[in-house]
Amino acid sequence: MPYTIEFEPIGIRLLCEEPLTISDAARRAGISLKSVCGGKAVCGKCLVHVHRDSVSPPTESEQRLLTNNQLAEGWRLACCTTVLADTAVHVPVTSTAEAQVIQLDGVGAHCEPRPMVRMFPITTPVPSLTDQTADLRRISDALRQQHGVEQARVDLPALRSLHAALRAGDWQVAVAIRGDEIIAVYPGAIPRPIGLAVDVGTTKLACYLVDLETGQTLAAKGAMNPQIAYGEDVMSRLEAVMVNPANDSRLQQEAVETINTVAAELCDTQKLTTEYLLDVCLVGNTAMHHLLLNLPVRSLALSPFVSALDSALDVDAGQIGLHAAPGVRAHFPAPIAGFVGSDHLAFLLAAGFGEDNRTKLGIDIGTNTEIALQVGGRIVSCSTASGPAFEGAHIRHGMRAAPGAIERVIIDEDGAVHCDIVAGSPPVGVCGSGILDALAEMCKVGIINQRGRINRDKPGVCCEDDGKPVFLLAAGGNGRRDVTISQEDIDQVLLAKGAIRAGIDILMDHLGVTPREIEEIVIAGAFGTYMDPFRAVRIGLLPNVPLTRVHAIGNGAGAGARMMLVSTDARQCAIRLAERIEYLELAAYPGFNKYFAYGVRLPAF
Amino acid sequence: MPYTIEFEPIGIRLLCEEPLTISDAARRAGISLKSVCGGKAVCGKCLVHVHRDSVSPPTESEQRLLTNNQLAEGWRLACCTTVLADTAVHVPVTSTAEAQVIQLDGVGAHCEPRPMVRMFPITTPVPSLTDQTADLRRISDALRQQHGVEQARVDLPALRSLHAALRAGDWQVAVAIRGDEIIAVYPGAIPRPIGLAVDVGTTKLACYLVDLETGQTLAAKGAMNPQIAYGEDVMSRLEAVMVNPANDSRLQQEAVETINTVAAELCDTQKLTTEYLLDVCLVGNTAMHHLLLNLPVRSLALSPFVSALDSALDVDAGQIGLHAAPGVRAHFPAPIAGFVGSDHLAFLLAAGFGEDNRTKLGIDIGTNTEIALQVGGRIVSCSTASGPAFEGAHIRHGMRAAPGAIERVIIDEDGAVHCDIVAGSPPVGVCGSGILDALAEMCKVGIINQRGRINRDKPGVCCEDDGKPVFLLAAGGNGRRDVTISQEDIDQVLLAKGAIRAGIDILMDHLGVTPREIEEIVIAGAFGTYMDPFRAVRIGLLPNVPLTRVHAIGNGAGAGARMMLVSTDARQCAIRLAERIEYLELAAYPGFNKYFAYGVRLPAF
Repeated sequence: MPYTIEFEPIGIRLLCEEPLTISDAARRAGISLKSVCGGKAVCGKCLVHVHRDSVSPPTESEQRLLTNNQLAEGWRLACCTTVLADTAVHVPVTSTAEAQVIQLDGVGAHCEPRPMVRMFPITTPVPSLTDQTADLRRISDALRQQHGVEQARVDLPALRSLHAALRAGDWQVAVAIRGDEIIAVYPGAIPRPIGLAVDVGTTKLACYLVDLETGQTLAAKGAMNPQIAYGEDVMSRLEAVMVNPANDSRLQQEAVETINTVAAELCDTQKLTTEYLLDVCLVGNTAMHHLLLNLPVRSLALSPFVSALDSALDVDAGQIGLHAAPGVRAHFPAPIAGFVGSDHLAFLLAAGFGEDNRTKLGIDIGTNTEIALQVGGRIVSCSTASGPAFEGAHIRHGMRAAPGAIERVIIDEDGAVHCDIVAGSPPVGVCGSGILDALAEMCKVGIINQRGRINRDKPGVCCEDDGKPVFLLAAGGNGRRDVTISQEDIDQVLLAKGAIRAGIDILMDHLGVTPREIEEIVIAGAFGTYMDPFRAVRIGLLPNVPLTRVHAIGNGAGAGARMMLVSTDARQCAIRLAERIEYLELAAYPGFNKYFAYGVRLPAF
Repeated sequence: MPYTIEFEPIGIRLLCEEPLTISDAARRAGISLKSVCGGKAVCGKCLVHVHRDSVSPPTESEQRLLTNNQLAEGWRLACCTTVLADTAVHVPVTSTAEAQVIQLDGVGAHCEPRPMVRMFPITTPVPSLTDQTADLRRISDALRQQHGVEQARVDLPALRSLHAALRAGDWQVAVAIRGDEIIAVYPGAIPRPIGLAVDVGTTKLACYLVDLETGQTLAAKGAMNPQIAYGEDVMSRLEAVMVNPANDSRLQQEAVETINTVAAELCDTQKLTTEYLLDVCLVGNTAMHHLLLNLPVRSLALSPFVSALDSALDVDAGQIGLHAAPGVRAHFPAPIAGFVGSDHLAFLLAAGFGEDNRTKLGIDIGTNTEIALQVGGRIVSCSTASGPAFEGAHIRHGMRAAPGAIERVIIDEDGAVHCDIVAGSPPVGVCGSGILDALAEMCKVGIINQRGRINRDKPGVCCEDDGKPVFLLAAGGNGRRDVTISQEDIDQVLLAKGAIRAGIDILMDHLGVTPREIEEIVIAGAFGTYMDPFRAVRIGLLPNVPLTRVHAIGNGAGAGARMMLVSTDARQCAIRLAERIEYLELAAYPGFNKYFAYGVRLPAF
């Protein structure tokens, strides 16, 4: 009897046919749970919260590792708990392997599907000594007669497959055509026309399986970018290639293999294989783009930071090792510049940049944050190394706005801390809004100064074993840890804030725009999705605009990639958009340091 | 001091920089001399005739292995003789490794060159922090500004090479463009634009290096088709693949590797590498075509003999392993049917079929002989398994019309044999004209009957050790062997003649043409080149037409391939021609056996 597991707050559903442990189910769903002991019920790290009574009873290990209170509240170890019926499983950030939470939502592709590839069912006559017509001509004749479609070219691997497909389908086949070229032939009736959109991030890959005719996202899944073994950030990864050129193809192959694996799993949800993928669209920052295409990256890493190309490129999927239908040409939208990639273009496309002339700010927050400002007919973009703080990766007790997350903080003048916690659960961490709130409040009462230094004399500030000061947001108890904010956390957030704000201010200065004139701010990225505009404006991350003008669209790059996957119009739109975007090199902007220093400082409260 | 060796009658010239033995020079020129002892001056098989006094004096080995008469006449061992100055070397067929003589002449490509790929020299600005233009855009801007050429696409491997080429050429490069796509970028000044035409025969590969702008053949070389290890004829080779599907890619790779090796040697004559090959055109019979593209061949081998395609195909050279410039698309002209390949199309193109409506017969003689008859607006082609006799391979004392070849035979009623010998040398073998003459004369005086049976009672007929009768054409002596004609030789020639004549007669019957109406007979293939029309008509190989109407054009397929290599017009012409050619299945023609039996018989003399 099949049942469904819903993982929260990630929002991934998994249909299971047999009883599975939550660990196994999570693995199938692409969610990496912490597992120091490797599922031996020893480390107790894979703590999850199960809502309903549809799981196996607690094991002896769980009774040993968890408190009775925890068990009573529904906390269980994923490796010990077998799911028996429909259930929702809450996975706290503290239980997921670092940086494993993938941003898969994003706005829907708001465009009419008009795919590059179309599929036609045909039936051909059976050959005989009086009809020795070649296989390909048999098919093109049928295409013309049965659909009025003229075929002029054929991809070689597709041509190689004609023979078997015609005979396996008993002279009834489905022919996939892009333009005037046959790219695949499938025996029998017409299958669902599917395509793959991928947002290749430095840290994470987000893959979307899309119905090319309806535009519907059929399944989505994330994975770590395996290149992370060669360096966490873009620069260290480029250096890895420059130091050892053999790494070039290794990085390429490992990323492609991961995409192939995820794609196969996604296709499997539709009872299809990657051989049925009729189109692929991949976006990413320029380094990921170049690495995935095995283009030289030396010039990306060294001044003057010149990319190999800044236009859209279609390449044979097979040429870069991507598994797909024989003749698929993978679409790589244009990278804008060395540090502004096609993911930024995809985000701006999804955010409607270039559609009108409204004054509009777009911010895609990540380890690198790309910012675009549209004013009149101009769109200027820049990139800023904001670091991983807003991705939640390097904030000690950072987590998403899931149950147990501190999302609102008020600190009285006497130092008393009041926290709002998501779902009213006991506090287990602090989410984006919470940390922004905390910083503002700490500054307000003087626990930190405007540069973010912790005042050790203030109540709530204590010293850790290494002598470094931390501020206690919420005390632990009942087996829970304290939730604290360290000097390092504060520095990380302020550096990120400073980098992003400097980028925004420089773009506004460059185009002569004041905050009041900004009609819309569109924010993408996981952090942005859960960020409270009020707090973002309050600590000065965003310029002071009416809050109703701030919109979050989640994974904007993924959304844009899906648009370009299903719509030739969106591809054309993106090509025109890319030609319009001007790149501004922040480091070369006069007074950059002043802007940055201003951006890092907290406002006076 | 450089000197030139001219190998005759093959017609290959070799420019040498240093003193070489004739063996080494022959190897460089792609001519395989017999060498049982491996060049150790022991076997005496590598006998050649040197015309001028520009070689080293005879060695002790030569004095031991050759007679004084031979040495006086200019006969030498290739492995012992060092060339010192310009010379012509005659290589008798008896000294060449079997089936290693490659037909490389053929008519010149009689078309205006208009290549697919053009080359443009450009200089780009040097990048700086104020000019971060991407490499590709730097090139396309220069192409537009300096040549008015719009570039829209780029091949991925070419794109990968931009970075190094721009920097190695100090921002001066040569860009090769096909249509609107960049297919290669070379550092520095513009190199000679070269392309490769290949005639892929079942037994031999003929490769031509051509200047794409002038149409001039710069160098040519042949090689054995290495697939021969999997079967001598087409059918046994197809069976090898069907029995073991892994052979499919082995056959493909081995053929491509041989082409790559020969291509590299040809490019080397121009001080270039295969990376500079800007275009490739490959013709061959349909089985060779399919094997080279790794297309399924099962349907080619089994009734109803359906090919995968019967239209022209362009494929990425890299996709089939061919070494060439990054973005080269190898052109495969259309195969006509399962047993009539693109080599036939190339031959008909070179022979001017389809250019006018003259009544015209085209015959490409090989192991398989393809025949086409053009009448009015129609062109009908057929294929016939004529066997290797006319290729000279399986005739015991067969050779080309080189010195020592019996080229004319008269037999008196009393059995006395009179021979004309090429260059008046002592007789060493019999060439095509000679064997046709011999058969006619033998029949005339009753040494053989009209079915070719030797009458053992006739003078000149003797028995060999195995009891089989042979006819003595010329007695040996002075260390030379007898030149004889065996029953097997006669059978081979008559079967070949029967197959070809049956094909001609069936085509004439099918189109209602009488011999008198035939305005031209064009003959291709090595045998055809040296065949005397008078003898061919006399023994009934050709219908009875005025001899001035018979023309030989040598390797017509190679000539046609070169035309399609250098001229887009010729490609278009060939595409139209292919659509017009009707294929006739001889075996299914009513009364085929009767035609064949008639064709095998010798006429009454």
